[in-house]
Amino acid sequence: DTGSWSAKAIKEAKNFGTVNVAYAGKNENYTRIPSQDELKLSGSEAAYVHLTSNNTIAGTQFAAFPKTQAPLVADMSSDILSRPLNVNDFGLIYAGAQKNIGPSGLALVIIRKDLAARASEKLPTMLNYNTHIDQGSCFNTPPTLPIYFVDLVCKWLEKNGGLAGMEKINNAKADKLYGAIDGKGEFYRCPVAIDSRSKMNVVFRLPSEELEAKFVAEAGAAGLKGLKGHRSVGGIRASIYNATGIDAIDALVSFMNNFAAQNG
Amino acid sequence: DTGSWSAKAIKEAKNFGTVNVAYAGKNENYTRIPSQDELKLSGSEAAYVHLTSNNTIAGTQFAAFPKTQAPLVADMSSDILSRPLNVNDFGLIYAGAQKNIGPSGLALVIIRKDLAARASEKLPTMLNYNTHIDQGSCFNTPPTLPIYFVDLVCKWLEKNGGLAGMEKINNAKADKLYGAIDGKGEFYRCPVAIDSRSKMNVVFRLPSEELEAKFVAEAGAAGLKGLKGHRSVGGIRASIYNATGIDAIDALVSFMNNFAAQNG
Repeated sequence: DTGSWSAKAIKEAKNFGTVNVAYAGKNENYTRIPSQDELKLSGSEAAYVHLTSNNTIAGTQFAAFPKTQAPLVADMSSDILSRPLNVNDFGLIYAGAQKNIGPSGLALVIIRKDLAARASEKLPTMLNYNTHIDQGSCFNTPPTLPIYFVDLVCKWLEKNGGLAGMEKINNAKADKLYGAIDGKGEFYRCPVAIDSRSKMNVVFRLPSEELEAKFVAEAGAAGLKGLKGHRSVGGIRASIYNATGIDAIDALVSFMNNFAAQNG
Repeated sequence: DTGSWSAKAIKEAKNFGTVNVAYAGKNENYTRIPSQDELKLSGSEAAYVHLTSNNTIAGTQFAAFPKTQAPLVADMSSDILSRPLNVNDFGLIYAGAQKNIGPSGLALVIIRKDLAARASEKLPTMLNYNTHIDQGSCFNTPPTLPIYFVDLVCKWLEKNGGLAGMEKINNAKADKLYGAIDGKGEFYRCPVAIDSRSKMNVVFRLPSEELEAKFVAEAGAAGLKGLKGHRSVGGIRASIYNATGIDAIDALVSFMNNFAAQNG
C-alpha cells in the first residue's frame, strides 16, 4: 500500500478474496517505497501481488520492482512509457492512457495468457480478458479517436529514441527539478525519501502554507499552471509526464530560484 | 429476441439469472418486431424486460415500445437521438456513442435511481451505477475528447430542431429510400414487415446475389460506400444515421433508379 491507488486496489480485491497487505505505507504518509526485505509476501499461496508503480499524490515511484513468487500485477497508469520495461517480469500490467499514452478514454492491458485463462466462465463477456485476446481488442467498437492519438504518441516516442530515449529525458528533467529543490537550503523541501522519488510527480514543500499559496498563485500568473499539491497532502506538485519538455522544467526552476531569492 | 444484440443480452443475462425469452424472432430471420399481444412476459416477477430498440443487421426498429410490468431496459445504441423519447417509460436506457451520439469511446446510460439502488455492494466500484451517479460521471477520468465531440453534436442537434426536428428529417430520409425500394416493381425488395422497418438501417435485396455484388461495386465506385449487407444476412444495407443527410439519400435513390433501369 504505497498510496491512494494501491488503497483502492486493496478495497476492490477485498470483495473477491482475502487480502494480505504486504507493506502499509500510510503511517509514514506514503513518503517512501518499501525495500524487498520489508515486504510481508504470502509466497506462492497468493493469486497475485499488486503494486502501483508510481504514486501521483505522494510523489513516489518504484525505481526497481520487487521479486515475487506470485504473479506481479502493476498499475502503471502514471509512469508507463516513461522508461524501458521488462514486461516478462509481470503477470499483468494495466494503465489508463491519460498520462503518457494518449488522451483519456482508453486503457492498456498486458497480461500473461496463462493468467487470462484462469478467468471464470461466469464473467460478463466484456470483462473477460480472453474475449479481448481472442478478438484482437476489437470485440467492441474501440475508441477510435483516442487510439489515433496513441498512434501519433508512439511515433513521437520513436522519434525521441523510444523508451530508452524517454528515460534519459525524464532523468534529466527530474535531476534538474530535484536539484533546484535540494539546492536552496531549507527553503524548498521534498518529503520523499531520495531513493523513492518519482520522476513523474515531483512534490515539495515551502516553509509555510502561506508561502505555498503565494508560490502557486505567482507561478500560475507566470504561466506555470497546476502546481498545487493534491488536496489530501497540500504543498506543491509538479507533474512532469512525458509531454512536459525540458524547457518547461527550466522555466519552473528559474521561477523557483527567483521566488526563493525574494521570499527566502 | 429481435436480433444479434438481443441475443447477446440474453446470453449475458443467463450468467446471472433465469431468462424468459418473451419473443423469439430468429425463426422468422428477425424480419419483424413483435406486437404487444405476442410478448410472453413474466409480469412483475421479472427483474426487467430487455429489448433492442433498433436492429442494425435485420433492419428492424420498435416504432412504439411495449408496456411491461417489470422495468423496461433498452439498448438504444443504434437509434438514440433519432427521435423524441419519453425516458420515463424506461427503467434503464443504454447506448454506445458511435452511431448518433458522437465518436466511439463512450456510452450513455439513463437509469432510474431506485434501480441503481438495487445494486449489490459486492460489485466492483467501477461497475456500480451508484458510483457514477454519486460522482457526477467523473469517478474515473472521463474520455474527454469524445465528450467534446458529443457537445458539438448536441449543438448540431439543437440547430436541427432537436429530436423532433431530427425525427422529421429521419422520416423524410426513410420515406424516400423505402419509396425507391417499393416503387420499382420486384427489382428491389425489402424483407422487413412494413410496420417494423428501421429508419436507421434500411435493408433490401435484389433479384440475385450476383446483381447485389454488382450493385455494391458500382455504388462504391460512384461514391456510395458501405452498402454491403451484414455477412450474416447478405443483401444491401444503407445505414442512414443522423449524420447522413437527405442529399446522400437523394444520391442513393438516383443511383438505384439508374441501376434498376440498366439491370432490371
